[in-house]
Amino acid sequence: MNWLIIDKIIEAALTEDISGEDISTVSIVDEASLSTVDLIAKEAGVLAGLPVFERVFTLLGKVDIEFYKTEGSHVRPGDLVAKLTGSTRTLLSGERTALNLLARMSGVATLTYKFVSLLEGLNTKLLDTRKTTPNLRLLEKYAVTIGGGTNHRFNLSDGVLLKDNHIGAAGSITNAVKLVREKVSFIRKIEVETENLGMVSEAIAAGADIIMLDNMSLEDMKTAVELIAGRAITEASGNVNLTTIKSIAETGVDFISVGALTHSYTSLDLSMKNLKNI
Amino acid sequence: MNWLIIDKIIEAALTEDISGEDISTVSIVDEASLSTVDLIAKEAGVLAGLPVFERVFTLLGKVDIEFYKTEGSHVRPGDLVAKLTGSTRTLLSGERTALNLLARMSGVATLTYKFVSLLEGLNTKLLDTRKTTPNLRLLEKYAVTIGGGTNHRFNLSDGVLLKDNHIGAAGSITNAVKLVREKVSFIRKIEVETENLGMVSEAIAAGADIIMLDNMSLEDMKTAVELIAGRAITEASGNVNLTTIKSIAETGVDFISVGALTHSYTSLDLSMKNLKNI
Amino acid sequence: MNWLIIDKIIEAALTEDISGEDISTVSIVDEASLSTVDLIAKEAGVLAGLPVFERVFTLLGKVDIEFYKTEGSHVRPGDLVAKLTGSTRTLLSGERTALNLLARMSGVATLTYKFVSLLEGLNTKLLDTRKTTPNLRLLEKYAVTIGGGTNHRFNLSDGVLLKDNHIGAAGSITNAVKLVREKVSFIRKIEVETENLGMVSEAIAAGADIIMLDNMSLEDMKTAVELIAGRAITEASGNVNLTTIKSIAETGVDFISVGALTHSYTSLDLSMKNLKNI
Amino acid sequence: MNWLIIDKIIEAALTEDISGEDISTVSIVDEASLSTVDLIAKEAGVLAGLPVFERVFTLLGKVDIEFYKTEGSHVRPGDLVAKLTGSTRTLLSGERTALNLLARMSGVATLTYKFVSLLEGLNTKLLDTRKTTPNLRLLEKYAVTIGGGTNHRFNLSDGVLLKDNHIGAAGSITNAVKLVREKVSFIRKIEVETENLGMVSEAIAAGADIIMLDNMSLEDMKTAVELIAGRAITEASGNVNLTTIKSIAETGVDFISVGALTHSYTSLDLSMKNLKNI
Amino acid sequence: MNWLIIDKIIEAALTEDISGEDISTVSIVDEASLSTVDLIAKEAGVLAGLPVFERVFTLLGKVDIEFYKTEGSHVRPGDLVAKLTGSTRTLLSGERTALNLLARMSGVATLTYKFVSLLEGLNTKLLDTRKTTPNLRLLEKYAVTIGGGTNHRFNLSDGVLLKDNHIGAAGSITNAVKLVREKVSFIRKIEVETENLGMVSEAIAAGADIIMLDNMSLEDMKTAVELIAGRAITEASGNVNLTTIKSIAETGVDFISVGALTHSYTSLDLSMKNLKNI
Amino acid sequence: MNWLIIDKIIEAALTEDISGEDISTVSIVDEASLSTVDLIAKEAGVLAGLPVFERVFTLLGKVDIEFYKTEGSHVRPGDLVAKLTGSTRTLLSGERTALNLLARMSGVATLTYKFVSLLEGLNTKLLDTRKTTPNLRLLEKYAVTIGGGTNHRFNLSDGVLLKDNHIGAAGSITNAVKLVREKVSFIRKIEVETENLGMVSEAIAAGADIIMLDNMSLEDMKTAVELIAGRAITEASGNVNLTTIKSIAETGVDFISVGALTHSYTSLDLSMKNLKNI
Repeated sequence: MNWLIIDKIIEAALTEDISGEDISTVSIVDEASLSTVDLIAKEAGVLAGLPVFERVFTLLGKVDIEFYKTEGSHVRPGDLVAKLTGSTRTLLSGERTALNLLARMSGVATLTYKFVSLLEGLNTKLLDTRKTTPNLRLLEKYAVTIGGGTNHRFNLSDGVLLKDNHIGAAGSITNAVKLVREKVSFIRKIEVETENLGMVSEAIAAGADIIMLDNMSLEDMKTAVELIAGRAITEASGNVNLTTIKSIAETGVDFISVGALTHSYTSLDLSMKNLKNI
Repeated sequence: MNWLIIDKIIEAALTEDISGEDISTVSIVDEASLSTVDLIAKEAGVLAGLPVFERVFTLLGKVDIEFYKTEGSHVRPGDLVAKLTGSTRTLLSGERTALNLLARMSGVATLTYKFVSLLEGLNTKLLDTRKTTPNLRLLEKYAVTIGGGTNHRFNLSDGVLLKDNHIGAAGSITNAVKLVREKVSFIRKIEVETENLGMVSEAIAAGADIIMLDNMSLEDMKTAVELIAGRAITEASGNVNLTTIKSIAETGVDFISVGALTHSYTSLDLSMKNLKNI
Repeated sequence: MNWLIIDKIIEAALTEDISGEDISTVSIVDEASLSTVDLIAKEAGVLAGLPVFERVFTLLGKVDIEFYKTEGSHVRPGDLVAKLTGSTRTLLSGERTALNLLARMSGVATLTYKFVSLLEGLNTKLLDTRKTTPNLRLLEKYAVTIGGGTNHRFNLSDGVLLKDNHIGAAGSITNAVKLVREKVSFIRKIEVETENLGMVSEAIAAGADIIMLDNMSLEDMKTAVELIAGRAITEASGNVNLTTIKSIAETGVDFISVGALTHSYTSLDLSMKNLKNI
Repeated sequence: MNWLIIDKIIEAALTEDISGEDISTVSIVDEASLSTVDLIAKEAGVLAGLPVFERVFTLLGKVDIEFYKTEGSHVRPGDLVAKLTGSTRTLLSGERTALNLLARMSGVATLTYKFVSLLEGLNTKLLDTRKTTPNLRLLEKYAVTIGGGTNHRFNLSDGVLLKDNHIGAAGSITNAVKLVREKVSFIRKIEVETENLGMVSEAIAAGADIIMLDNMSLEDMKTAVELIAGRAITEASGNVNLTTIKSIAETGVDFISVGALTHSYTSLDLSMKNLKNI
Repeated sequence: MNWLIIDKIIEAALTEDISGEDISTVSIVDEASLSTVDLIAKEAGVLAGLPVFERVFTLLGKVDIEFYKTEGSHVRPGDLVAKLTGSTRTLLSGERTALNLLARMSGVATLTYKFVSLLEGLNTKLLDTRKTTPNLRLLEKYAVTIGGGTNHRFNLSDGVLLKDNHIGAAGSITNAVKLVREKVSFIRKIEVETENLGMVSEAIAAGADIIMLDNMSLEDMKTAVELIAGRAITEASGNVNLTTIKSIAETGVDFISVGALTHSYTSLDLSMKNLKNI
Repeated sequence: MNWLIIDKIIEAALTEDISGEDISTVSIVDEASLSTVDLIAKEAGVLAGLPVFERVFTLLGKVDIEFYKTEGSHVRPGDLVAKLTGSTRTLLSGERTALNLLARMSGVATLTYKFVSLLEGLNTKLLDTRKTTPNLRLLEKYAVTIGGGTNHRFNLSDGVLLKDNHIGAAGSITNAVKLVREKVSFIRKIEVETENLGMVSEAIAAGADIIMLDNMSLEDMKTAVELIAGRAITEASGNVNLTTIKSIAETGVDFISVGALTHSYTSLDLSMKNLKNI
């Protein structure tokens, strides 16, 4: 984990939740008090973010954590994930921020895993998108990989994707690809969004490295994959959900991208329980 | 809106998505190019975050927006929410960040509204929690109010909530309330989490301002409300969902808190369409 | 102490005072040189900020401090407060910043204590205000508590105080309270500023939680307290000084707020003396 | 004013005071509401910080200010300093932060002026020190100049002052000056702190540019000034107050430094009054 | 230009140079004084950074600039590049920071152009590296493109380059490529550093997208290019200077990377002259 | 070293180079892997920045460094500078940032040393200027001292230098010096830029502490030095290079300033080699 970046996210989150003191805790719990507490899963899912969960307490005070589950583990309701030992104040004050991060990252991993499971036995891989929570993209894209997914570009600066508006502005796919190839680094692959088979043919001819098949019918996707015949990587996109993903994959596309992985996951229910003074 | 704070969130989000240049757009779209584009709802829901959506473009470049819907409006699929006019580059480069924020805030408002609708005709109000997305709490809690909900405390520093662990550390509810009353500002109301009627009685006697009824049976909640008889504000919590909320409200509690409002909403589907050069 | 926040204050202060190197010290004192030095009170007062004083040296280098006085202690001129041992360079370079913080916080605590002493035997408590030094509010409000005072709201976002201008805008106290009650979180108490007995009566009727008696005569304050009769908390404000505070308290008000605690204290004279190489 | 730096101070102060929304104001005052309000002096003193006062409102919203007094003006109780016109919300929300800054800066200028007045007709000038409020040094040192004082070094990095501990570490004044002259930039003047006439003689011989006479008797100071005879600039320091400063100045020293200017001033009482909707 | 990022660089640079006030200028030049001044080239070279130069003054105050040369122009000694009109204080205080940026960016462009000129008529393109000035990479890589060069990866996170140590850790090129292909985003091309023809063959077989020929003899490079036969992009690296670049290019490599473009350029001599009050 | 400031520079540089993960290294190298690696000089020069080099790895992970050369050492090609032991990932990921800093700082020291060598046996000292790399001034000016040079003012706020434009604005050197003397701190020396002997005479009469002889002929400089006769410090400036510096020094000036030290140095070639797993 790149702590130079993630620490800033965590510190901001802690400061958001504790802008002065944790007034309930500080009023009641002695500074010297030590406790243990259990981290327990209350819902089935895939864990992601355990190092981040731990880091919250490291940045806030002194807590030792023994993990009983590893990153990427599948948990069932009631599973003991970890046992934390340390300052009672730190345990109570860091609890919500640590859980807020872990629950979201595990939520992403869990949803990703659901989609990935449906691709079992097929050669198609699952992709995320840029529809991530503002300022948490690094954590969410990491969680996608823990859930078994694959990352698409990180942002507008490290990957090329030519959409309808770019193509419109350039006049044609051919011209759009040509302009981009001249201007962006040679290390970038060029992806072109296509909406029909005509555009697919033009994208192939233009030398696109990746061709997105956007909102196409299954039949068209299948034809497109045959047309492309390995000359470009294929990515299906649009209206992908747990019901449709398998048949989309069966068209033979290399990748399927799903915005919901990061824009519409729900937090995994995890809880800190059984705090005991020691 | 407190732009001194929100601008920092937006600028960080823009920098997360455009760490160098938007290489696709800059390669193809001329700097002087101007366009209009429509913001369209693709799903029914409640809009929240229109000023934030607009601010993204203001911070990135120069775009004028004419809104056809107001903050808090209900939209249906296909509704035109706004028409944006400005630099094509700014429109394309800011699109994802602006939508990522608006879609999440509207998602919170939409889910909140669903819960609030079930309370119609009752005196019970809906509350959020601290289970918010790290570093977006200000925006999510604002979206809860747009959806018709009410805000609980913002963080650990501006509200007192004595949970089982605090009570355990203090020895009793009575002592916990006493300690807190001595130490926190007199402007704070003191809330005590109770799990059974015995605790409720002790909380009343201790002079709690707010009594949380946590994971109680409907029957117990009803009895608790009668016991309290207006001497404290009541808040029901735990296992609240769209199915259970109405019967919980009918016990007569003043407030019901629902973590899902901010930890398990899904983004509202909104899209920028019909970009046209002018 | 919330070091995530206070460390930023200290680091900024150190950088303000050492923007490059401490050129006098670095030119003369060897990097390996170790010394001890005494922290001595040169004036009578109440100590506040010892953990902050220590943290300055922790953030700058490596210094061990043995304290002979505890937070909140009363000191007399000549008292040894602490003995510091560590890098001579760190001791010399951190001295001014550490003293600037400690002297101010102790100044606040000392002035607070003077006011609090005059309330001995009475049920009235001393309150601070928002008239704090910009960007040092957390430290100054903490120092108020060390001196025996009580904190009012931290800022405009965590407490409601309806002043003449708010009341004017709302049309009446009744309406102002109603509007606020609808819009702010139910965890907030509502305070209304009143200037005469008529306003007091209206505030009671409106259900204000706290009624500020601003610049009233002693007689009116007394009458107001009787009128309110425990239905709201009372706070006296305006023209409070060391001469007047006792008679104001004797009117029976619950709290008296004094801006001078944080806007017009003087630094407590403390000094680092007897540096000796070891 | 260096707004690149001062804006950060103001924005942090505004965020300290308005961490979410100004909940009282936002609940009651309409966003479109406009008002005028008067800035009035309630105490006699010297104004400093008017541009900073104005900048608070500029950074928060849109307010026009007509000033009736200029920076450095002497005001009497009741004097109208400025009339502000703008968004009622901005006026109410920015009031405290703007006043907190202006009142402190004017407090520094007022105290400085008191000291400076006692030097009238003499050639001695008043100096500030590094005993400033952490993170407000730029504003306080500026306020000293508005009050008629002169700035000493800004911090440890832009001026040399060899104190007893530096001299002790170097073995002698002679050696300390020699070491510093070798290592610091030739643009720095070298100041040496002396406690007796023997040290003064050694400092002269060592070629000190400035000689501080620390805590010396008036007689010794006079002798020191004669000894130095213009070969170095002289600065008196220690136990300077409004009673002693004149006789110290009469010893013929060039400068007298007074820590109290920035560590023990009191805020000038200023108030925003007569808010009227327009 | 991505001002959200570049503004932070400029503001930091201005604050580095003006930590308080520009004391010389503020003492002498009236705040209302207006002037014009010329930006003149004193050396032949290629201009890069004109928008950055202009932005320095925009962030500091109010200055209008009329440019007589455009970004990427070749200038000769004495050429008038721009005429600036605005506040004399802003012109004087911003001069050094603006020139420091422009001179460095133009230095990069000028050196890049020298290398690029030697590739005229050949199909080989010039690449930069990550040997850039810390915290100025965005500006320097931009300047490389202005000088006619091409950007390699921006940083360790947006491009894959497997060096000897990676290959060693993986056991073989084959394994290294396999591991990376499994873990990094499918949008990344994979580059492998090779030192001899055996490694080249292995890299081809492993499916490397780009093969770096590091410190190879001209003969070996030629053979490598033939071996690769278009199955991968080729990049020559190591010991490239103005004397050797042409013959390296003639081996038929697609790209040549030169660290010196950003690690060993010299600033282009530019000056602001003929300041005239208006 | 002032780590409070330098750490921010390093952390920003690390984040610039590793905005997500070091994707090549993380894909291949095991987190637990440990290695040693050598830091080797590939070019002759003077080392500066070893503590900064080390700090990069300290901030990124855990690496122990044994240095075989000290700060300021002269190295020859092939010299072993240091041996690093630690996490293979940290060694690989920090390498470029650490080298980018060390190579630049050593480049400055090396060029400085070349100039200083030519002044051997003369009383003239070498000065740097403000023509430094934006946001790296602290490091570059430090490197100048390691190379044997002397620092001029740090920035516009800590030193006075009256140039032609200041003199023009004031009307005369006499008036410019008078204005500055009234307004800036008495601890500042006042430097005046002169272009001919008439200006030199005026500067002497005005009491300038330092007189810059800008772009004068050797003969004029010699006459100027005689005219000044020790009444002011002299600094030669303009058209100084390795060929001219000695004869300029022989005119008897006290200092010679050379912008190229920091604006036109080249990086010293250093490399991390022989990584071995342990």
